[in-house]
Amino acid sequence: MAFSDAEFLADRNPLPSGLDSRLRDHLTFLIEVDQLKTILRASPLAAANRRENDAEHSWHLALMVMTLAEYADEPIDVGHTIKLVVVHDLVEIYAGDTPIYDTELGESQQEREEAAADQLFGILPEDTAMKMRALWDEFEARETAEARFAKAMDRLQPLLLNWMAEGGTWRTPGVTANDVRARKAVIGDGSTALFEAAMHLIDEGERRGWARS
Amino acid sequence: MAFSDAEFLADRNPLPSGLDSRLRDHLTFLIEVDQLKTILRASPLAAANRRENDAEHSWHLALMVMTLAEYADEPIDVGHTIKLVVVHDLVEIYAGDTPIYDTELGESQQEREEAAADQLFGILPEDTAMKMRALWDEFEARETAEARFAKAMDRLQPLLLNWMAEGGTWRTPGVTANDVRARKAVIGDGSTALFEAAMHLIDEGERRGWARS
Repeated sequence: MAFSDAEFLADRNPLPSGLDSRLRDHLTFLIEVDQLKTILRASPLAAANRRENDAEHSWHLALMVMTLAEYADEPIDVGHTIKLVVVHDLVEIYAGDTPIYDTELGESQQEREEAAADQLFGILPEDTAMKMRALWDEFEARETAEARFAKAMDRLQPLLLNWMAEGGTWRTPGVTANDVRARKAVIGDGSTALFEAAMHLIDEGERRGWARS
Repeated sequence: MAFSDAEFLADRNPLPSGLDSRLRDHLTFLIEVDQLKTILRASPLAAANRRENDAEHSWHLALMVMTLAEYADEPIDVGHTIKLVVVHDLVEIYAGDTPIYDTELGESQQEREEAAADQLFGILPEDTAMKMRALWDEFEARETAEARFAKAMDRLQPLLLNWMAEGGTWRTPGVTANDVRARKAVIGDGSTALFEAAMHLIDEGERRGWARS
């Protein structure tokens, strides 16, 4: 994609003149991110017969952080961890979703997402952009307790949806129960208790034939 | 609705036995809330030709808190403010959305939402339920700086979407530009700068004929 040719969503109906220019940049960004609601994930919803989008997923992770923080192996700052999950998928507005079992797309994922981050956060005033970028970098690096727990939520949430769908994306052609287990290993970097629960769900799913042995 | 007859979403495909009972309650709640993704609001998306749902809206507010916190009139704890917006619409899973310009539904709103909160948070272990309920009560009461700013975001966000839709719900039959201004007054309880920007957008919308004078 030629990022230099990109038109921002707000350009379709420009904000009125007379707004402070810093605030205008903040609002332009907040309109641009509306597109996260149109990025579809592979996971099916539990509550409706359609796929989930990234905005719904990000909200669900935020509530999971608040609800499950007590299972974190290390103490975490809950508010900071929520910030990480709120921004973690923003780059997909330009880079698209990369399904976890798509190894081909996975190879170019980092490069595509770095370019998307430059483009998207570049809308913001520089200090705000740096804060957002730092949160995304922290999530990706998984070097803090908060980032490890945020990533654990990112892997546990679709597992709950797949459970409700009697397999969901576990049924992706070529994927086995052991592939699912391998992708969920990072849950254990954030929470031993939640990792054990995840393995229990996968074991039971495999026993019921929802994932190939 | 007979809440006592309600079946939880997780009952459609029960979690396996062998999970710790406290964790089972947490996960049952986190599956139940998937329904927030199916509660439609009146606001149209900017990025697609459909209405927004509550989960998308709640995520958008969380990112707005992070992006716009510098405009708060009083110092706010950003992490805590995000928690308020993440939970603020959960009761609509059972009580439904009450469009801001629907005065008839508005009359029964509080009673319906209190009952919904009892039902939904009642799924959780008591200590977690109390924390969630306290956050919802705080948001509703608007007695803290964080709740006032969270509410300001809740009113500013649809205004951005309505701007992008050249009126959106401002065009609801019987609604005038002054009605819109009256509903947006609470933005000023959280942020003078954002209230002035909101009034500027409404003034300009009225001038362009997107809201009736």
